[in-house]
Amino acid sequence: MTNKKADIGLIGLAVMGQNLALNMGDHGYTVAVYNRTIKKVDLFLEGAAKGFKIVAAHDLESLVSTLKTPRKIVLMIKAGSGIDQIIDHLIPLLEKGDILIDGGNSHYIDTERRFATLEQKGILFVGAGISGGEEGARHGPSIMPGGNHAAWPEVKPILQAIAAKSEDGTPCCQWVGKGGAGHYVKMVHNGIEYGDMQIICESYQLLSVMLGLKPDRLSQIFAKWNQGELNSYLIEITSQIFAFKTRENASLVEKILDVAEQKGTGMWTVISALELGIPITLIAEAVFARYLSSLKEQRVTLSHHFKGPAYRFKGDQDQVIEEIRQTLYASKIISYVQGFMLIRAAGAAKGWRLDYGAIALMWRGGCIIRSQFLNKIKEAFDRNQALENLMLDDFFKQEILKMEKAWRRTVSYSAEFGIPVPCFNAALAFFDGQRSPLLPANLLQAQRDFFGAHKYRRCDRPKEELFHTDWTK
Amino acid sequence: MTNKKADIGLIGLAVMGQNLALNMGDHGYTVAVYNRTIKKVDLFLEGAAKGFKIVAAHDLESLVSTLKTPRKIVLMIKAGSGIDQIIDHLIPLLEKGDILIDGGNSHYIDTERRFATLEQKGILFVGAGISGGEEGARHGPSIMPGGNHAAWPEVKPILQAIAAKSEDGTPCCQWVGKGGAGHYVKMVHNGIEYGDMQIICESYQLLSVMLGLKPDRLSQIFAKWNQGELNSYLIEITSQIFAFKTRENASLVEKILDVAEQKGTGMWTVISALELGIPITLIAEAVFARYLSSLKEQRVTLSHHFKGPAYRFKGDQDQVIEEIRQTLYASKIISYVQGFMLIRAAGAAKGWRLDYGAIALMWRGGCIIRSQFLNKIKEAFDRNQALENLMLDDFFKQEILKMEKAWRRTVSYSAEFGIPVPCFNAALAFFDGQRSPLLPANLLQAQRDFFGAHKYRRCDRPKEELFHTDWTK
Repeated sequence: MTNKKADIGLIGLAVMGQNLALNMGDHGYTVAVYNRTIKKVDLFLEGAAKGFKIVAAHDLESLVSTLKTPRKIVLMIKAGSGIDQIIDHLIPLLEKGDILIDGGNSHYIDTERRFATLEQKGILFVGAGISGGEEGARHGPSIMPGGNHAAWPEVKPILQAIAAKSEDGTPCCQWVGKGGAGHYVKMVHNGIEYGDMQIICESYQLLSVMLGLKPDRLSQIFAKWNQGELNSYLIEITSQIFAFKTRENASLVEKILDVAEQKGTGMWTVISALELGIPITLIAEAVFARYLSSLKEQRVTLSHHFKGPAYRFKGDQDQVIEEIRQTLYASKIISYVQGFMLIRAAGAAKGWRLDYGAIALMWRGGCIIRSQFLNKIKEAFDRNQALENLMLDDFFKQEILKMEKAWRRTVSYSAEFGIPVPCFNAALAFFDGQRSPLLPANLLQAQRDFFGAHKYRRCDRPKEELFHTDWTK
Repeated sequence: MTNKKADIGLIGLAVMGQNLALNMGDHGYTVAVYNRTIKKVDLFLEGAAKGFKIVAAHDLESLVSTLKTPRKIVLMIKAGSGIDQIIDHLIPLLEKGDILIDGGNSHYIDTERRFATLEQKGILFVGAGISGGEEGARHGPSIMPGGNHAAWPEVKPILQAIAAKSEDGTPCCQWVGKGGAGHYVKMVHNGIEYGDMQIICESYQLLSVMLGLKPDRLSQIFAKWNQGELNSYLIEITSQIFAFKTRENASLVEKILDVAEQKGTGMWTVISALELGIPITLIAEAVFARYLSSLKEQRVTLSHHFKGPAYRFKGDQDQVIEEIRQTLYASKIISYVQGFMLIRAAGAAKGWRLDYGAIALMWRGGCIIRSQFLNKIKEAFDRNQALENLMLDDFFKQEILKMEKAWRRTVSYSAEFGIPVPCFNAALAFFDGQRSPLLPANLLQAQRDFFGAHKYRRCDRPKEELFHTDWTK
């Protein structure tokens, strides 16, 4: 009886959903697909899905009745209340032990709520962050599943089959943790993506404004950088973007309006860090940089009032290019230091038992932030699973020490020359803060005690003891 | 009949509540006071309240029955669910038109909710942010009331009587706006306070680490700074803190543990800015600096691995001190630029009709961020009520231009010398971003379109038109 039934159902046939269904089809799975606008189901079946073991469902009842038990249904629909609505429709159709997988970009807080609601009804809910864009969905994304662990043995074969594989063949899909853990890790992935993109942009700003380099040359530089420690998908596509010409043989990227848009996952990451007390300064500056870019008219107006320093670059161009590369690399390390601090703090707060190395490995392939660099992070956690701060791993320590001088120089002359590099700045200030045994927070505590009687602790007394002083005496 | 009744009730006799009651007493008001722990009421009446027209209430019923109508009751209790509980107890005792004033540090979102609930019951709810610490509460705080405007004529005389007065005698208490507007503006006040405190700390870090200056000298420097443009309460108390000696004649501030604590209002400010799309980078870095300071053990460990640059300051000490002062001043301007951007955005999003000049004036006296500087902001909004960005006011423009060179130098050598000044950095990067007609966000938009088909706009085409490119073609 199960023989003729479909292995898995998929709801939502926008491009990500279609590609994921085709990807499953590639791996021999029979997929039943449904979409609210029914016409899309038929168009898909007659088009891209032709030749695949993909079957159409024209309503949720027939979708559910087509599936092997325990039923597995992937939701590939826009994050938000639409997911709650479809879950409400599905609940009466499902049986205990059936599995719902939300493969969208849901906020982890929503995933936690849905997990709890469905757990009470005996339905196993999985929130799976999926990264890799259209291409990844089609040929191998990074998949970060979390939620009800009882679902994992059932969905593991299919999710690992369709996921990207790291160099040694390990699937970029491992169980993350309970509740909203999968979507949480996906959210941090996106936050890191914001950071990675912004530090590439800051390099671009320095190379183009300070050195006056043009897109063709920039394409070469990023192509070369992609051969070294910075080897990554984002550096690779940056090189391609700079090479791209319009029909008139002009650079396309220079025609694009410099107003960055966003969908909010970077913001969620920063809010979570704020709530957990983690100084995720680089990603915060990356989010703010997008906001600032959107104030285009105000920027143009202000540019007439504030001309900035008159400078002209003199010196060894190749050396400065190399220093910018090292600054980008050092800043990238700091961003991942901060990202893993956040993941660790979230895991502790939520009671997730996270495997940091497995998370690095999941990001190794398929997703937007994929890079060789993530191997190094995986190796660091292999050396020490409990590693508290990536900077304490010898590899990263040595890398930072190698880059430090160039990094300081770049930040220093950016300030002198008036070129905004908020993330490079934030990374260096964080680094200098983290390696400062003494920070001026003693004064801040004194101020708080002065005006608000908030009390303070002393260096020369046990941490438990609180003191208050009448400072005006 | 109303003759013998009390003018106003006050619930919550912690130090802020007691001082506010005494302050009302000073101005001839009869205050009925209640506290959950009844003993505190009696102790207050027998102690500090002796000789004042302050009457005791031993339960909420008698508190309410003691008051003139419409009744006015100020809640001075800890933010959180305790406020909801006391409101629930009060509702059946009150009549339509009675007024409840929450004078605590409530989150504006809670205030909006309570406002709406009480409005339905005909009770006028006012969320009033109060700043100034114990001293302010006793002798004149800054009060930022918002909520139900129908309450304003009733509470205005008493709130303005007890509030601080600016130099021209205007009370530092004006109606802010509907719903949660009062607590929102108080929240931003606190966020700015975080920023002001952190930039003072960064000056301290530079003066003490780079120049090796000791508390006595630092006290003199801040006392001198307090004579000029930086004249403010926080600079004044900083000078006093540096002068303060233990019984052993040692500097007390140097004995204080450099781990900053906080109560969350700075975090709320940054979260609100993230949600509204405002790049409030300086306050964000100030919040993160507190978080970073709290990782004390990690900092000490890392300090052994990362020694930082070996430097020794050479040059004109007085010149550097003056440059640090100018950096502090320029950064402060940027922080207020960002703060007022946030208030403007919140006003637009919430439909509050905010008077920015009145807000500056409210902060002019009584509160922790009070300063001469706020007069200048008031004057800027007097010149142009619709001023979109404080940097566009000629006074602030000229001030920034005067400070710019020193500011760049300070940020530049801080990076070279390895001294973390995250807020000075963030302020300068923001300034350079805001005056950049072109930012590298065009590349970022190209990346988003490359991997996610998110589309982009073009500089040479109407903003409404969206484009997508197959970048791999």
